[in-house]
Amino acid sequence: MRTRDLIVEFPTVTMDTPALEAARLLAERDLPGLILVDDAGLPVCILPGTQVLRLAVPAYCREDPALARVVDEAHADLFLRQLGGRTVRECLPEQSRELPVADMTATVLELAALMARTRSPLVAVVDDGRLAGAVTLQSLLDRALEL
Amino acid sequence: MRTRDLIVEFPTVTMDTPALEAARLLAERDLPGLILVDDAGLPVCILPGTQVLRLAVPAYCREDPALARVVDEAHADLFLRQLGGRTVRECLPEQSRELPVADMTATVLELAALMARTRSPLVAVVDDGRLAGAVTLQSLLDRALEL
Repeated sequence: MRTRDLIVEFPTVTMDTPALEAARLLAERDLPGLILVDDAGLPVCILPGTQVLRLAVPAYCREDPALARVVDEAHADLFLRQLGGRTVRECLPEQSRELPVADMTATVLELAALMARTRSPLVAVVDDGRLAGAVTLQSLLDRALEL
Repeated sequence: MRTRDLIVEFPTVTMDTPALEAARLLAERDLPGLILVDDAGLPVCILPGTQVLRLAVPAYCREDPALARVVDEAHADLFLRQLGGRTVRECLPEQSRELPVADMTATVLELAALMARTRSPLVAVVDDGRLAGAVTLQSLLDRALEL
């Protein structure tokens, strides 16, 4: 079993994708994260869902839960409006981390090692110089457990 | 909208749960992680799926992808057998991190702030001294996007 047996189509975003659209993709397709690609269509980083939330939550609320508590329920409900007009560019993690990326021939052990090392439930797959899809922790566990 | 509107039932594991059972739970129920509870049933930590994988992948493969590559496909396929006989106790993250935990009255903004700060797509909910369930990034985004 190799990447080619586990790969799934996976949505991508670019630096200019609206952050709200990224949030919708995460929610509607129940994704563990999004693949950010550059102008050439190659993966730049994996954007975890929590990183998109980060942009919607004012910094003072993130750092001090007591301050998040003073915002009343009606205003709190609308917190995603903070994403309006902003793009994925502003959601990028501050520190760049190793990009979990594999080719079509990686074994399930190589893919698992990559997920474990980068703590990413998602590996981007590059084939023939372009993004071909992704392998998720979900699909990898599903298949490996059958054996 | 508060925790009580977003809470879902969520499976738990204990220190003594077999690691293979934890992997099955993650795969079958498509979970972003598992809630580890103590003997009193209170949450101790959130165990990400990648942390369970970590136990199944030999350290030399995690650290050096080239070494994972030399394991042939037939053996690689069976890597989850490494979990046999081992328990969740061995999957625990080395560093203890802030536990994302909320009560029934937290607003959606408080929950989002907690997920963003702890980078956890899952918040454990404690009510009346016991674990009542969880709020997931997924359910939070779904509901907040409707507004």
